[in-house]
Amino acid sequence: MNIDDIDTPAILIDLDVAEANMARAQTYADTHGLALRPHIKTHRLPYFARRQVELGAKGINCQKLGEAEVMADAGLTDILITFNIIGKAKLDRLAALHARVSVAVVADNVPVIEGYAARFTDAGHPLDVLVECDTGAERNGVQSAQQALDLARLIDAAPGLRFAGLLTYPPSDPKATGAWLTKARQVIEDAGIAVPKVSSGGSPTLYAAHETDGINEYRVGTYIFSDRMQVAAGLGTIQDCALSVLLTVASRPTENRATLDGGSKALAADICAAPGHGHILEHPDAIVTKLSEEHAVVDLAACAEKPGIGARVRVIPNHVCVVVNLFDKVHLMRGNKVEQVLDVSARGKSN
Amino acid sequence: MNIDDIDTPAILIDLDVAEANMARAQTYADTHGLALRPHIKTHRLPYFARRQVELGAKGINCQKLGEAEVMADAGLTDILITFNIIGKAKLDRLAALHARVSVAVVADNVPVIEGYAARFTDAGHPLDVLVECDTGAERNGVQSAQQALDLARLIDAAPGLRFAGLLTYPPSDPKATGAWLTKARQVIEDAGIAVPKVSSGGSPTLYAAHETDGINEYRVGTYIFSDRMQVAAGLGTIQDCALSVLLTVASRPTENRATLDGGSKALAADICAAPGHGHILEHPDAIVTKLSEEHAVVDLAACAEKPGIGARVRVIPNHVCVVVNLFDKVHLMRGNKVEQVLDVSARGKSN
Repeated sequence: MNIDDIDTPAILIDLDVAEANMARAQTYADTHGLALRPHIKTHRLPYFARRQVELGAKGINCQKLGEAEVMADAGLTDILITFNIIGKAKLDRLAALHARVSVAVVADNVPVIEGYAARFTDAGHPLDVLVECDTGAERNGVQSAQQALDLARLIDAAPGLRFAGLLTYPPSDPKATGAWLTKARQVIEDAGIAVPKVSSGGSPTLYAAHETDGINEYRVGTYIFSDRMQVAAGLGTIQDCALSVLLTVASRPTENRATLDGGSKALAADICAAPGHGHILEHPDAIVTKLSEEHAVVDLAACAEKPGIGARVRVIPNHVCVVVNLFDKVHLMRGNKVEQVLDVSARGKSN
Repeated sequence: MNIDDIDTPAILIDLDVAEANMARAQTYADTHGLALRPHIKTHRLPYFARRQVELGAKGINCQKLGEAEVMADAGLTDILITFNIIGKAKLDRLAALHARVSVAVVADNVPVIEGYAARFTDAGHPLDVLVECDTGAERNGVQSAQQALDLARLIDAAPGLRFAGLLTYPPSDPKATGAWLTKARQVIEDAGIAVPKVSSGGSPTLYAAHETDGINEYRVGTYIFSDRMQVAAGLGTIQDCALSVLLTVASRPTENRATLDGGSKALAADICAAPGHGHILEHPDAIVTKLSEEHAVVDLAACAEKPGIGARVRVIPNHVCVVVNLFDKVHLMRGNKVEQVLDVSARGKSN
């Protein structure tokens, strides 16, 4: 099977580029003594999760229980879920997961820890809990070292829980994040509680991870495929983007307008610093000016050659993670040859 | 099963509100002698497609072959696909569909019509083809009445095709759209070709459809559930929104900040004229300021009562169609009671 046999819209993943991205990150992490923990939200595929671990990743990061269950089913054994888990239905699923693989979770508040403590009571097989810290990016997380200590004490006091360390996402700049986490670690250690792990993450700042004082783990998702957002943020070039969306030119209403057969349901509507909604590899001067759900409108004014109706183009999306979640399958490519077609088995998984 | 038994994130559909929205639109269309053809991209569910037809809809509108196949499997018999269909794989599927239900398609260019004409050659069972017109919104469509006539002639001359009329989307304002379509119809009729159907559409302008001269069909999707975009555009109020996303308050990092357990993967990132990324029914003064993929950050500064960790809230999304496509199932509600849980059977369907 060849690229010409693939119906559009479709996701293509260049295996050589993805492999190079994975290897480069692992080498960097190894060089700096950081545990690498890839976030599977970007690929949603056991295929790549296994490969990341084979290359040396410590384990994987999931955001939802449903993702973690898929990965555990596929043989992944070290899973961190970086979202407060609330309610009986989810805690029961977490307990089932904890019974079969090594799983760690996070908390940034008392009620969430109370929920864990009530459900997990076996001191012989405690649940690892990290305290999530807001180091300046204003999403989740405790607001101070003192709050981190309060939660660490609460976890430490619960027989079925084990305080596993500190975690942040998104980080603020590496210096500020490092200072925040180092202070919190010190305060907790001064109180006599060990801090085994200090974890930061994020693809745009991956190769500055060693500038963050005190961390020993780095979590990273998008780096495997990269996208226009990452390139705009300084992570490599457009040639380092492994995933493209194959689309067909469905209409040429005017000399300078083309429409493609995929819109926000294929490319996602996320915007980034680069102009438009994607980079067309075959026509780098084209601008994807507008998306509706099933149409991309393209301005061809700056293009020396303009594609005809029926031409197929590969579009590097602005934000690759949300694109993968829109498709049921992906095509793994070696050049123009399809090596495998995979179901995106951790797609969806709303809870 | 009750609302309290539903794990979050989850889609809730208020059946009474959806039913009222469907009935109101059908009554309006009947009053003005317009055929109503609902677009299924909003609900992606045979359940509602069948109900729309029961209430008097002429047939349904799909955007992708995959959606049309799901609807045909579910017993829908009159299907219009409003996207140029290109390539052997898709034309073969179209032929299979044409063999079992009444199907019509569109074209706005010569190569697409040549594709239809080469694949459909049975004069005894011709394929209906409408010419898509760009009446000012600059997406797909022919640019002039003369171009519409040229394509109508090409369709009319193909033994296996039947020219079925004119179609536009998105329309420009009703007067301009009406004038454009009326002129094109006249030019084509003057050339001796009948124009059975003239079709416009769009939820925001649904109740001004009768002001569009010369149309006899109106296609409409979002009206069934409505959303913040529609309300901002003048279609009813927030109480007319039938679909909400049930989320849990997962964190309260500060006095005025909450985070919910769903982000752009639950609410979609589309923005609209109203502030923020959704309307929280229980806290109408809250603003959903920021979405990441799995987090919604909420500013509670203006709220008299602020929800605690674990509280559950219903969020009316900005753009409902893309939200439905992100979930695998929906909950049909009568008040707080779950009447049915349905798989979103036409979700995804990239091609």
